[in-house]
Amino acid sequence: MTPIVSASLETARLPSRAQQIRSFLQQHDLRAWIVWRPDELVMLSGHFPFWGASLLIYFADAEPVLFVPQTEPRDHIPAGLQVREYPWGDLKCSDPYSVLVSAVGDELVRAKIEPEQAGMNHNAARTSLPIQAAEQIPIPEGFAGQLSAFAAKPDAQCQEGFADLYLRKTPEETAAIRLANRVANVGLQVFSEHLQPGFTEAEVAAAVESAICRQIGRGEIFYSRGWAMVQSGPNSADAGRFNRSTGRRLGNGDLVLIELATCVNGYWSDLTRTGAIGIPRDDVAQMLAVVRDAQQAAVAAIRPGAAASHIDALARDKIAAQGLSAFFTHHTGHHVGFRYHDPGFLICPGESTRLEPGMVITIEPGVYVPERGGGARIEDNVAVTESGHEVLSMIEGNRHGADDRSKRL
Amino acid sequence: MTPIVSASLETARLPSRAQQIRSFLQQHDLRAWIVWRPDELVMLSGHFPFWGASLLIYFADAEPVLFVPQTEPRDHIPAGLQVREYPWGDLKCSDPYSVLVSAVGDELVRAKIEPEQAGMNHNAARTSLPIQAAEQIPIPEGFAGQLSAFAAKPDAQCQEGFADLYLRKTPEETAAIRLANRVANVGLQVFSEHLQPGFTEAEVAAAVESAICRQIGRGEIFYSRGWAMVQSGPNSADAGRFNRSTGRRLGNGDLVLIELATCVNGYWSDLTRTGAIGIPRDDVAQMLAVVRDAQQAAVAAIRPGAAASHIDALARDKIAAQGLSAFFTHHTGHHVGFRYHDPGFLICPGESTRLEPGMVITIEPGVYVPERGGGARIEDNVAVTESGHEVLSMIEGNRHGADDRSKRL
Repeated sequence: MTPIVSASLETARLPSRAQQIRSFLQQHDLRAWIVWRPDELVMLSGHFPFWGASLLIYFADAEPVLFVPQTEPRDHIPAGLQVREYPWGDLKCSDPYSVLVSAVGDELVRAKIEPEQAGMNHNAARTSLPIQAAEQIPIPEGFAGQLSAFAAKPDAQCQEGFADLYLRKTPEETAAIRLANRVANVGLQVFSEHLQPGFTEAEVAAAVESAICRQIGRGEIFYSRGWAMVQSGPNSADAGRFNRSTGRRLGNGDLVLIELATCVNGYWSDLTRTGAIGIPRDDVAQMLAVVRDAQQAAVAAIRPGAAASHIDALARDKIAAQGLSAFFTHHTGHHVGFRYHDPGFLICPGESTRLEPGMVITIEPGVYVPERGGGARIEDNVAVTESGHEVLSMIEGNRHGADDRSKRL
Repeated sequence: MTPIVSASLETARLPSRAQQIRSFLQQHDLRAWIVWRPDELVMLSGHFPFWGASLLIYFADAEPVLFVPQTEPRDHIPAGLQVREYPWGDLKCSDPYSVLVSAVGDELVRAKIEPEQAGMNHNAARTSLPIQAAEQIPIPEGFAGQLSAFAAKPDAQCQEGFADLYLRKTPEETAAIRLANRVANVGLQVFSEHLQPGFTEAEVAAAVESAICRQIGRGEIFYSRGWAMVQSGPNSADAGRFNRSTGRRLGNGDLVLIELATCVNGYWSDLTRTGAIGIPRDDVAQMLAVVRDAQQAAVAAIRPGAAASHIDALARDKIAAQGLSAFFTHHTGHHVGFRYHDPGFLICPGESTRLEPGMVITIEPGVYVPERGGGARIEDNVAVTESGHEVLSMIEGNRHGADDRSKRL
């Protein structure tokens, strides 16, 4: 498969994904790394798995080998991988994992790689969902343990080095996340059209998700799924704790908040918009106004070298200046792209890590005041460029400016 | 919260969920069991978690204790649980899990329960998704290990006993799965209305999912989400290996298959329908006809005491009689309800386990013939009753009969 979209010129000096991975392997004296979680597969090979275990061995000095279940669709597997098939979902093979584990062992023996020369992520923590998103990938008891026999690494330091690979997106990856944002914007347009009294929160969410799913088949989009959560009126005051859609009907004067996760071809965006229906009370309207100010101040300051805590403070100070700091209890942002929430440092108080070109972060200040009967949050996905930033969630024709807010929902 | 729907009289003699769990604990000399996976929580308490770790301690001789993150919505937590809150998503608490683990330890000490008297499922295999379905629950590295200090059990036998708890649904649980099936049928009705040339597969899937989401807020439905995968024409021949929707447009003569996972309030249905557009070629129409025959034969034989292999054979023989057995490569069915795919024995060749009242299984024979340019599968969810069976996916007014096929899509 050809790359999804071409790289922009501005970020073309970033190291390629292959360079980043090889440098990581070299630094830890590794000759191979094993992955099977969807987000790790997307990062190391661009392969977004359907279901079951697609397993990749990334070699320091040879083409990667990808094991796929025989049930895996082939048309979306990227070029440049040696593909091996193993049985799955067939009545004739009751234990596909043991076939896979033994094939992985054979491959490493063939490459003369000892266990202490190979690593993998043993962490059971969150991963992204595969194409078949109704269920987690059924990794059986003991699967990681069996693979450990081939991959003695990592120590904690090595583990951290692997997590660091998520941080700096290549221009191609940023382009894929930009595409996810553009598709999400199609959903957000539908959200804005539904800001009318009478719709239930669930009806608005359904319309947004539906618009996102319908993008499949357009251009390079082979997979597109949104998870929309709409909270209106008093329910929007809960949005700092959880996001869900209920049967409540939108009414005049409501703030309406949408939290929207979107996955396109394995790359994620994470956006939030808050709209108003009719004319909200002054104290409700004030929440929305301060969140807009806070978000704009933080976004505007994003550039290489800016400390995460500085970006956070810019948003937090605007909210404090309105006497609302007690109602902004969460971080200002996180990394995004390979997952709905990528690993990595948060944009939050006390976090001194500085931004670098290639990083893609969310900026999402919010205030939620049950006593005022509402809450507001605005969230964009922002790529750090060589010279500043790009708001990936800006709509077409207005991607590089933050001045014309009317073009954003 | 009151039970979702009342029990039907016919299955009222089944043991209650509490009786089943207490009997399991007694049999393994256990005084407590710890769960946090969504499907386990739903089974042991009816609580369908939002996100983060809701953790339940089920005591043999006291009211269960449910730990929830402070971010958890409270309005859908069932009555009869002692609820304890722990910090989450708050800038003031960077490690909520250690707070949770230590609270769990305290609770067990207070109840004077030794580690060898407590058990949990250490299996990392698949679980259902929580309400926030865009991401897996972020259980950190070492969480299970830390809990193991409190729960020394299980041995393998005990583990099997726990998995057995999935098999026999109570009347209330069957009613909740019936509700999931009725909601799914709303989606299938939309599918049938979209069996027209010109729609893309993704557009049909989007419409089905949208209809399911819009049910939120109706009656007792606080959560409703569908995952629809539509395959048409030659793509339907892939449906024995994978299910997904593409941008292909439906055309005259196509078979169109929909695989539909639906979760309502934490309970799942798993349905498949195959429709035809216009008049398919004879050899294509034959596939659909034989699958209908095979499915009907298997469903009709479902009753307590029937062996799984017997049910499978009834479907398989019908397909073999048409010379198509090589194209039916998967099992005939599986358990369903707490997950899209519940654990438990399959309805497949060689499986001698006999059906019992309360079991809910899928019956889903299919044939997929690339050479003929199509595939067909029909899948229903069937509850084993005291006297026979109930097709839970039958539409309203025709739930107990299998004679009028025209009322099913």
